[in-house]
Amino acid sequence: MGISVDTFFLKPDGQGTLQAQIQQMIAEGILSGRFHVGEKLPSSRKLAAHLGVSRITVTLAYTELLANDYLVAKGRSGYYVSENAPVPPTYTPIQRGEETVDWDRAIARSFRGGDVLRKPPNWRDFRYPFIYGQADPTLFDHANWRLCAVRALGHKDFASLTADYVDQDDPLLIEFIARHTLPRRGITARPEEILITLGAQNALWLASRILLNRRRKAAIEDPCYYALRELLVPSKCQVAPLQVDADGLPPGSIPDDTDVIFTTPSHQCPTTATMPVARRHELLRRARDIDAMIVEDDYEFEMAFLGAPSPALKSLDRDGRVIYVGSFSKSLFPGLRLGYMVGSEPFIREARALRSLVLRHPPGHIQRTAAYFLSLGHYDAQIRRMSKALLERRKAIEDANCKNDLTIAGRGVYGGSSLWMKAPEHVNTTALASDLQKQSVHIEPGEPFFSGPDKPRNYYRLGYSSIATDRIAPGIEIIAKAIDSA
Amino acid sequence: MGISVDTFFLKPDGQGTLQAQIQQMIAEGILSGRFHVGEKLPSSRKLAAHLGVSRITVTLAYTELLANDYLVAKGRSGYYVSENAPVPPTYTPIQRGEETVDWDRAIARSFRGGDVLRKPPNWRDFRYPFIYGQADPTLFDHANWRLCAVRALGHKDFASLTADYVDQDDPLLIEFIARHTLPRRGITARPEEILITLGAQNALWLASRILLNRRRKAAIEDPCYYALRELLVPSKCQVAPLQVDADGLPPGSIPDDTDVIFTTPSHQCPTTATMPVARRHELLRRARDIDAMIVEDDYEFEMAFLGAPSPALKSLDRDGRVIYVGSFSKSLFPGLRLGYMVGSEPFIREARALRSLVLRHPPGHIQRTAAYFLSLGHYDAQIRRMSKALLERRKAIEDANCKNDLTIAGRGVYGGSSLWMKAPEHVNTTALASDLQKQSVHIEPGEPFFSGPDKPRNYYRLGYSSIATDRIAPGIEIIAKAIDSA
Repeated sequence: MGISVDTFFLKPDGQGTLQAQIQQMIAEGILSGRFHVGEKLPSSRKLAAHLGVSRITVTLAYTELLANDYLVAKGRSGYYVSENAPVPPTYTPIQRGEETVDWDRAIARSFRGGDVLRKPPNWRDFRYPFIYGQADPTLFDHANWRLCAVRALGHKDFASLTADYVDQDDPLLIEFIARHTLPRRGITARPEEILITLGAQNALWLASRILLNRRRKAAIEDPCYYALRELLVPSKCQVAPLQVDADGLPPGSIPDDTDVIFTTPSHQCPTTATMPVARRHELLRRARDIDAMIVEDDYEFEMAFLGAPSPALKSLDRDGRVIYVGSFSKSLFPGLRLGYMVGSEPFIREARALRSLVLRHPPGHIQRTAAYFLSLGHYDAQIRRMSKALLERRKAIEDANCKNDLTIAGRGVYGGSSLWMKAPEHVNTTALASDLQKQSVHIEPGEPFFSGPDKPRNYYRLGYSSIATDRIAPGIEIIAKAIDSA
Repeated sequence: MGISVDTFFLKPDGQGTLQAQIQQMIAEGILSGRFHVGEKLPSSRKLAAHLGVSRITVTLAYTELLANDYLVAKGRSGYYVSENAPVPPTYTPIQRGEETVDWDRAIARSFRGGDVLRKPPNWRDFRYPFIYGQADPTLFDHANWRLCAVRALGHKDFASLTADYVDQDDPLLIEFIARHTLPRRGITARPEEILITLGAQNALWLASRILLNRRRKAAIEDPCYYALRELLVPSKCQVAPLQVDADGLPPGSIPDDTDVIFTTPSHQCPTTATMPVARRHELLRRARDIDAMIVEDDYEFEMAFLGAPSPALKSLDRDGRVIYVGSFSKSLFPGLRLGYMVGSEPFIREARALRSLVLRHPPGHIQRTAAYFLSLGHYDAQIRRMSKALLERRKAIEDANCKNDLTIAGRGVYGGSSLWMKAPEHVNTTALASDLQKQSVHIEPGEPFFSGPDKPRNYYRLGYSSIATDRIAPGIEIIAKAIDSA
């Protein structure tokens, strides 16, 4: 590909002769890596016309660059970036002058500084990746996903691919979720009660912005999904972290002045506890008594290979009090960024309006692709395949933990893809995780999941959705040794 | 596809015998449209095990439904939804009981009620669609987009498709934008100074949240992109609408206490005015004098078929004062939801953190597809093809306007895809647009673009990016007649 003439501009405050400025502009382009070896420069005629200078000025600049070995001439076909031109290792443009903006003043609100679970970018190269929530190439039905994506790229679907939906969603995906996905959770919902989101993260954020402000209080589980705590910060609400037990969130501990309760009843994050049905009813009663809303994050309900999952809390909700959040990140893949929320119409109308302000709508193509994948039955087949593999891995990891005397602090009763682990009190699992990386083992330290100043440091999470079964036992052995010598 | 056994739940507060409850559950599923004609029911053994009831109870329920013609039995293969079962026209689940939530209380912040340009959902069926900003199937390089999307779905790109980037972007797309797209606007930027967004809407929203709060003031153009006004509302800032002239925003009118200036210098939205270079320098000086930031929305710069676009305001910015917003909505298609912003590192770090809270990152697949489409040169070819067609249409629409004595209030000097039109004072273009729909003509009323209580009602916008050249003259004729008789 030739270098487009449109990428050339003379600086309005350029120094020196025009010829020198043109030379410098091209040399800087090469030095900064913008122009690559072998790329063709515009003809001197074109560049001269574009810059509004005489052709001879450009020709002289090119000749000079030729002499300096920045360019080579190939007969009548023109000028190319020379093989001998200095090549920077990566692209780093020339620095601009000193900036004068006072960013401390200019930034009205800051959103940085929260707890983030950083995963090593090269985790796929690890021998023992006990990582959570990533797609496993050996389990994901890549071939059928491709077929569905290609179908969604077809002429018949041109509008769903390209159109500006403004604030709408793909009706095909909505219908499938209403007809097939939600009934599995015991939920009936009309299309107007469903909104597609950019993953569960986006759904939780939308709910927090609509239901909370600086005068309201949110109750969250402790420990909890660390990003939930972070996304509540901009809403400026009060936050009450409530310690979970083996059955999840204890309804009795919810303060009377709570406005919104964030909970993960099917599969508490990160402890994996499942809330019994009796407690679900109790939670709903408590919410009714104090007139609080409930946001139910029902992530990972599909990974139920040990027993049928209980119906969602939303299915027991008679008041319209529960906002249900679902996600395709665990069952399909997180890079898809596709989730959904279900709630009463007044709420969904607000969520739709806010989503429209922030991003309009999730891209049409991914919505249609997911609709095809679901409606052709590939999704169900995929869940069965994943469940089979996860069951096998789960057995392997429980056996290995037992054999190595590691303490399991939480295990989902109907499945899931992770175990919540407890190391002896003196072990700092953040340091442990960092040490284990050197032995190609990835584990997730538990500290970021906890609220408050005195966070326990000896918990960790073992994901088994991306590790091959035969790697589990040797990996656990390394972890056990590292804990012993910690 | 059979109906999954997982979609069946007995209601915890169900009335009547178990058999009756099962019958009702199935009948409701059929009546509500959840189960379709011909779909197979779970075997009585499976359903009984799932519900925890005796098999004979399920068999009796099935037999009853058979007698009622809700189900048919096909020999030994099982029970299916009967062809004679009542079928609702569309899916409407059984209503839940009366909801008790007081939504006026529960909703802490409302985001609804703004001006929205509603386009008729069936605009593609219109004979004369003078619509703005939609993809034209006759111009979009659908074939190569598909090839790039398929390539991005390949095994080699598994990680970029599926991975949770957390707060990162596709490095391939970032590099291409830095190396090829931005230099065309005279901008040099390092990868850390670029953030991919869910369209320009998302970029403008991120900027508004970071740079504004209730103590700050935003200056916006009047008229302006209506969604900009709406997205500023949640930031609670003061807003100063400044009347634009034939050269765009007059820097002298910017109040001294302005913190952020939102502007569209290349192609004012909606008047299409291009700000001359001298005024751009003046605007930068004014911003420096009052220490204000500038958000430059450089939408549609690619559609330059009448002359080279001026370098972006950002290219003249020495202070780091300009946040640049670009979009692929006009040059590719709006349903892609892909844009980007360029700014100094302290700002981009904040924008990245906020984006991560709200949605993590734009889906990997669309980023990689765009990166391929750009880097293989299809994008440039596409722009050339569009520019050629738009030039032709532009000529046709100018001719037709002249012939029919319609008044053009604004035309982009280097191109664009719309004209800003002025009808006589007494014409209400909202009513006009509504009347014209009956004659299969779509025009966009101008009122939503204006700020304040006394909005002019006689402006309208004619987009020519989705109308065939030969439809333009007859379409304009109908509009002229409608204005004459208004």
